[in-house]
Amino acid sequence: MRYSYETLKVVLKDGVLVATIANPSLNLLDTKLLTDLDRFTAAVANDQNVKVIVFESADPDFFVPHGDMGFVDDPAAFATLSIGTDQDQRLNPMQRLFERIRKLPQVTIGKLAGRARGGGAELLQAMDMRFASLERGYLAQMEAPTGIIPGAGGTVYLPRLVGRARAMEIVLGADLFDAATAERYGWINRALPDAELDKFVARLSRNIARLPDGVIGAAKSALDSNFGDPTNALLEQNRLLGETFKQPAAADFTRKALKNGAQTREGERNLEAILHDVEQ
Amino acid sequence: MRYSYETLKVVLKDGVLVATIANPSLNLLDTKLLTDLDRFTAAVANDQNVKVIVFESADPDFFVPHGDMGFVDDPAAFATLSIGTDQDQRLNPMQRLFERIRKLPQVTIGKLAGRARGGGAELLQAMDMRFASLERGYLAQMEAPTGIIPGAGGTVYLPRLVGRARAMEIVLGADLFDAATAERYGWINRALPDAELDKFVARLSRNIARLPDGVIGAAKSALDSNFGDPTNALLEQNRLLGETFKQPAAADFTRKALKNGAQTREGERNLEAILHDVEQ
Amino acid sequence: MRYSYETLKVVLKDGVLVATIANPSLNLLDTKLLTDLDRFTAAVANDQNVKVIVFESADPDFFVPHGDMGFVDDPAAFATLSIGTDQDQRLNPMQRLFERIRKLPQVTIGKLAGRARGGGAELLQAMDMRFASLERGYLAQMEAPTGIIPGAGGTVYLPRLVGRARAMEIVLGADLFDAATAERYGWINRALPDAELDKFVARLSRNIARLPDGVIGAAKSALDSNFGDPTNALLEQNRLLGETFKQPAAADFTRKALKNGAQTREGERNLEAILHDVEQ
Repeated sequence: MRYSYETLKVVLKDGVLVATIANPSLNLLDTKLLTDLDRFTAAVANDQNVKVIVFESADPDFFVPHGDMGFVDDPAAFATLSIGTDQDQRLNPMQRLFERIRKLPQVTIGKLAGRARGGGAELLQAMDMRFASLERGYLAQMEAPTGIIPGAGGTVYLPRLVGRARAMEIVLGADLFDAATAERYGWINRALPDAELDKFVARLSRNIARLPDGVIGAAKSALDSNFGDPTNALLEQNRLLGETFKQPAAADFTRKALKNGAQTREGERNLEAILHDVEQ
Repeated sequence: MRYSYETLKVVLKDGVLVATIANPSLNLLDTKLLTDLDRFTAAVANDQNVKVIVFESADPDFFVPHGDMGFVDDPAAFATLSIGTDQDQRLNPMQRLFERIRKLPQVTIGKLAGRARGGGAELLQAMDMRFASLERGYLAQMEAPTGIIPGAGGTVYLPRLVGRARAMEIVLGADLFDAATAERYGWINRALPDAELDKFVARLSRNIARLPDGVIGAAKSALDSNFGDPTNALLEQNRLLGETFKQPAAADFTRKALKNGAQTREGERNLEAILHDVEQ
Repeated sequence: MRYSYETLKVVLKDGVLVATIANPSLNLLDTKLLTDLDRFTAAVANDQNVKVIVFESADPDFFVPHGDMGFVDDPAAFATLSIGTDQDQRLNPMQRLFERIRKLPQVTIGKLAGRARGGGAELLQAMDMRFASLERGYLAQMEAPTGIIPGAGGTVYLPRLVGRARAMEIVLGADLFDAATAERYGWINRALPDAELDKFVARLSRNIARLPDGVIGAAKSALDSNFGDPTNALLEQNRLLGETFKQPAAADFTRKALKNGAQTREGERNLEAILHDVEQ
């Protein structure tokens, strides 16, 4: 299988595929990156040479800052994205993409250094495991102050990781969480010193990729048999996301955030300051 | 809406309602406080001006020590309390009150400094989130040594927060947990230095209260769609509570605890010493 | 009731039964120990004088290293072990034994100092609570590199304790976890300094054993009413375990591990080094 994308660098070695997100200037989850992730995940799902997929970022400051806020001016363009076409079509495109990632036969590992907010955080939550840099890893569900709820799996994947009380704090408080707190909450498997993160993930990935045939599939199936199908909760998420979008003022919050510096490199460093003020 | 109660001071500002429990001498969850909480929660459920409700205590040492042990001498008075009349009448009065709190449309936040045991701990568990003072926050389910099980939601709300193994330790060990351990167990969202607790909760509450219309309701619904209805487990809790109450000696344990200092300010500081000895 | 076994020392005092695993040279979960655990648990289930059962190890380095790898040469001997005859016969013998332990009417507490891997870790997971020595407690599900999945409850009990993401890391990474990490993951209730562990468990056990009549049973029933029956997930685990066993090379991995030092005292100290290399 050949993997070649504009916004995603793919290197496969000994069963471990490293997919590096490289979508300058910010690694925004825009149409380009969504499309590349869609093409990549559709292809890799059938690649028997790939045992483990590690997602990382080429940008030291941003894993994926969030979905492209520009969609607010053309919601139809988002709703009709031809993405995740093999998934339940009642889900929105980003939900369909992340559900495909969640159900990949390989073991998926998110390596987080830099910020992952909104859809970037949900992308990570769709993976099997997450490891973050203690010094540089940050997570947030920042949708609420822009008038919507997380709409790409977050309200479903997140409570499975951190429980209802902490998911409520994350979603409604919409604050930036450092890696140490994210580990205490269960949002990530573990926070590791930046100097150890690469080695830790490389070793874990290599050990898993070298497991005897059949073990990865059997282990994933055995673990998954404990959990119900999330489709109904995802449909409810999508319905409620639509309700919030319908609020007359909803798009204005995002437009104001954009005007105040969102989706600029400087603004994204402390996006919370922009968002928590935007509705004043 | 006007809120005026004997044992509950209510202040509403910019969508954040702070309800301060002030029921001297100990903040016991007695008929007075239960009745005020019932009236307050019935009223506030329909108050569209209230977005966030913070419950705190006026007493620096006790949030709510527990339910009034005096009910042991008049169980009928407890069972027939006219509380939570809009809830499932097969539940006991305290379960009905806490179920109403659990289902409030607002975001409910418990701010814990001092001790919360028994029904006081269950009151906190019925809320959406809990934050505690690292130095002064303490939690316990202290019912077991008095011959009963937690009967106001605890055996249902608690395992959802901390899992079965830690809930078993909390309920059967009946020990006092400091805030740091409670955080590690997931019993509370987070333990914060006493000097930061007020500011943290105030900021979080303000940010949530200022969220655009519709977001709070959509987020709560989306998160709740992941969890089953707890009514059957609450009915089973109530049935089993009744079984333990029927034990001939059950009331005696509580009477002895009262004789040994329970429900006095000094005795309540180290209630565990009284309770773990009471059955000798 | 008289309890006398070759590999299990049993002492009962004031309602607390301490069962000390003593099966030299390694405390392997072999036919002898499995049979003694089966006879012990069948008998104790009906002993009303026993309120709390503490499982500990006589070996300072090993709680239970894992199931006897020798079964690989005689899988029929394992499959036909006459163990857990009162349990669902569609489950394998070790699942049946651990399900009986999981459903004991008493409160079961694992006290972990030394290593518990594979079936030894699953034995602990079947108990109500687990406390470990901060300095000497270690846990691993080490099955994956030997070509199989944990087959005695692990893929069912473990995600209930630590969630899917961390269970995936534990099962597929197959690494040794120290007690501090195990606590953060929720695998154990708590890690305690070695010098405090015995006292902590003794005090907790004594307090629970002294609880008034009826409280233990009511609390366990009330807590269990929140969780579904795990039988279907256990059947799926057993089916998938069988699939991995059928791989032509599966038994070879175990035989190589044995040749490289597994099941020797020295080899078991760092079994991961042997296992992660065995498949090269």
